[in-house]
Amino acid sequence: MTGIDTVLARIDQNLDGAVARLFSLLEIPSVSTDPAFAPDCARAGQWLVDELMALGFEATLRPTAGHPMVVAKAKAKRRDVPHVLFYGHYDVQPADPLELWESAPFKPHLAEAATGTRIVARGAADDKGQLMTFLEACRAFRETGDLPCDITILFEGEEETGSPSLPAFLAANKAELQADLMLVCDTNMWNQTTPAITTMLRGLVLEEVVIHAASRDLHSGMFGGPAMNPIRVLSRIIADLHDTKNRVALPGFYNGVEDLPPDVAAQWEALDFDPQKFLADVGLSQSAGEQDRSLLEQIWSRPTCDVNGIVGGYTGKGSKTVLPAQASAKFSFRLVGKQDPDKIVASFRDFVRARLPVDCRAEFLSHGASPALQLPFASEALARARRALHQEWDKEPVLSGSGGSIPIVGLFKKDLGIDALMIGFGLDDDRIHSPNEKYEMSSFHKGARSWARVLDALAG
Amino acid sequence: MTGIDTVLARIDQNLDGAVARLFSLLEIPSVSTDPAFAPDCARAGQWLVDELMALGFEATLRPTAGHPMVVAKAKAKRRDVPHVLFYGHYDVQPADPLELWESAPFKPHLAEAATGTRIVARGAADDKGQLMTFLEACRAFRETGDLPCDITILFEGEEETGSPSLPAFLAANKAELQADLMLVCDTNMWNQTTPAITTMLRGLVLEEVVIHAASRDLHSGMFGGPAMNPIRVLSRIIADLHDTKNRVALPGFYNGVEDLPPDVAAQWEALDFDPQKFLADVGLSQSAGEQDRSLLEQIWSRPTCDVNGIVGGYTGKGSKTVLPAQASAKFSFRLVGKQDPDKIVASFRDFVRARLPVDCRAEFLSHGASPALQLPFASEALARARRALHQEWDKEPVLSGSGGSIPIVGLFKKDLGIDALMIGFGLDDDRIHSPNEKYEMSSFHKGARSWARVLDALAG
Repeated sequence: MTGIDTVLARIDQNLDGAVARLFSLLEIPSVSTDPAFAPDCARAGQWLVDELMALGFEATLRPTAGHPMVVAKAKAKRRDVPHVLFYGHYDVQPADPLELWESAPFKPHLAEAATGTRIVARGAADDKGQLMTFLEACRAFRETGDLPCDITILFEGEEETGSPSLPAFLAANKAELQADLMLVCDTNMWNQTTPAITTMLRGLVLEEVVIHAASRDLHSGMFGGPAMNPIRVLSRIIADLHDTKNRVALPGFYNGVEDLPPDVAAQWEALDFDPQKFLADVGLSQSAGEQDRSLLEQIWSRPTCDVNGIVGGYTGKGSKTVLPAQASAKFSFRLVGKQDPDKIVASFRDFVRARLPVDCRAEFLSHGASPALQLPFASEALARARRALHQEWDKEPVLSGSGGSIPIVGLFKKDLGIDALMIGFGLDDDRIHSPNEKYEMSSFHKGARSWARVLDALAG
Repeated sequence: MTGIDTVLARIDQNLDGAVARLFSLLEIPSVSTDPAFAPDCARAGQWLVDELMALGFEATLRPTAGHPMVVAKAKAKRRDVPHVLFYGHYDVQPADPLELWESAPFKPHLAEAATGTRIVARGAADDKGQLMTFLEACRAFRETGDLPCDITILFEGEEETGSPSLPAFLAANKAELQADLMLVCDTNMWNQTTPAITTMLRGLVLEEVVIHAASRDLHSGMFGGPAMNPIRVLSRIIADLHDTKNRVALPGFYNGVEDLPPDVAAQWEALDFDPQKFLADVGLSQSAGEQDRSLLEQIWSRPTCDVNGIVGGYTGKGSKTVLPAQASAKFSFRLVGKQDPDKIVASFRDFVRARLPVDCRAEFLSHGASPALQLPFASEALARARRALHQEWDKEPVLSGSGGSIPIVGLFKKDLGIDALMIGFGLDDDRIHSPNEKYEMSSFHKGARSWARVLDALAG
């Protein structure tokens, strides 16, 4: 047997023990949002510290203003190996509504389904099951020889509450957390037999605009007609933001947006994705996005502009013939590729100002501006991870985008300057954040094998 | 002396007594909105009944679910005279804030100002002073001979609270209140030396629209792009409602809208009205109304469309990347001339439906639809009233419009089918509804003389 085959065989042999270890962690109700569970959060952190110490890591529980961080480090004996930083979180969502669970959320158990055995518990998928795939890979390396890479691990206990302590912790521990590549196991596979690597996270620009017209609210019977209505001004701006092909009409908006490499485009084209079903699930039948782009492109790799809220004048029951002095709207822009958030903000504000009639003025509030994150398609680490996953699953992994933004990954990129390889084994039907959360045994087992192959491949 | 000169001379002789009588009425704090003053409202009504009885009217105090009505009738000895219905209200606004009054609001007194003597008290102008001008005219006719017209009088005590009992009262007493022409004394002069007749009241159509798109609120990171945003749909509709010349773009909207008769247009053109000042008072410098219409036309005689409120998505502090399932807006249309409210509603709804993308639907709520009220410019009664006021003031009265809608006048037109001649002697600076309300002695004195001349003119 080659080195990696020995490691994979050990993972197979360890499976029962691995499940028992995961169950121990799942039994700790580390709900981060409820202060009543704070001791449990600390206990889950300590459990991981103990586990990592047993695996030969230097591991410590590090206090924060909120729940503690777990930081662990282990070096390979071989030198000149890559240094990876693995991120995960040990906190979980609340189990409510409890009455909808078919079993106790913190009494993990195995259940049989048409798709095979599954692990049922709060946190089984998000994120305890996922992070344990990485630890089980490390265990197999340790038990059969040496780690293939230098490894730093960071587990936080506040991901489900927006990671309030993370920015300060990263800033204070930059040197200690520095690595060549970040590994994140908090995403999904394409389906139960097809792995995926998330290489694109869209950026996000959040702008609010208040249009001011008259100096006070007016009676529309007296002033309707002569007095400019700020709702009308705002509506014109919103209506103008998209052209007839549903493209965003801001000048320069598409600067820095690149088309997909042909192989990725071909891969997406061939995926068994049903746009009709995606839309039908939320009561729609036709995409309102860019007419010349596929739906997957629209949500993964194309930039967008949306109004997330609007308010002005009287909004209660019945009617009031008021002509409001102001009206406001909140806008979000999802960015991709090399779109520059600052330039988007500037272009948007110019766009608004150019549509202000006489006597109106615009007030702008920024609620954030972050660029897209994209692991270059030509990245050597990506190429190695693709090969490793292909070997494990006998299928080319899907290089997916993520419509949403994952602030944590952006924080690591910004503060530590390192790219992230996001590989996860969750499935869309895992019911994370909902009752009866589960993680497929196939995800848990082959997930650990996948990490072993990826670490081996990264080491070359 | 001719008959009318005798009557006018009697009004002049009666002036001190007339002021004393008005003071007696002003001393009664008939605040309709506050139940604590209900006995005072009844007392004011009874005071008017007694006064009218003394003038030879058959007068009664008629109970309603709220404050009582005063109904009085008197016939001229001469037959084949016109029958007029005079409307006014004896209730007043609350006097608060009391500390801003320079004298007790229900202790009427005379004050000297640069513009002459004025009567200061709550209700001096709105509407006790105004309605007493009519009673003093009746008194002078009685004391010097006969009434020139058959006269029915209706005073209500709930005008300041929206006239809740009036519709039912009118419906129940149609025959008793029938007349040839309604006279209303609750409006203003153009200025202290120029009388005015309000001949146009704009109608009002109130529509609310809810645009529905997806079956639930969506995450804009996941669905932004493909999922149609109802705020965008609504904004397009609002933006399309006016053309580049600020005309309302609804098909057929201007059907039934007539241009002013040349003499009225010329009169308006010549008025000492300063559009710049009108706009500057509310922080504006330029009219946003129809480009080819004067500002007075825009607010008096032209129809308009306004959005009075809009709401959709997240409107709290900060941001939320939501793509709302619905968004709604409230619209008001001011109608003039013979515009048909039902046709406007239908045209608007068609306009909205024509702009609904696939997967969107519109829900409509109606909050009312009433036509404009217009005393025909060719009306014989109007011509006679114009001549009468011209004689009294030595100036052609301004034939003005009113931007707002007066529901009571619409109710009389709808239920009793009679047109209204709105003549009032209030001034813009009378501070009705505010502390230190006043009514100019010139308004009170020449107002009574004006009614005498108008009644005489109507009788021919």
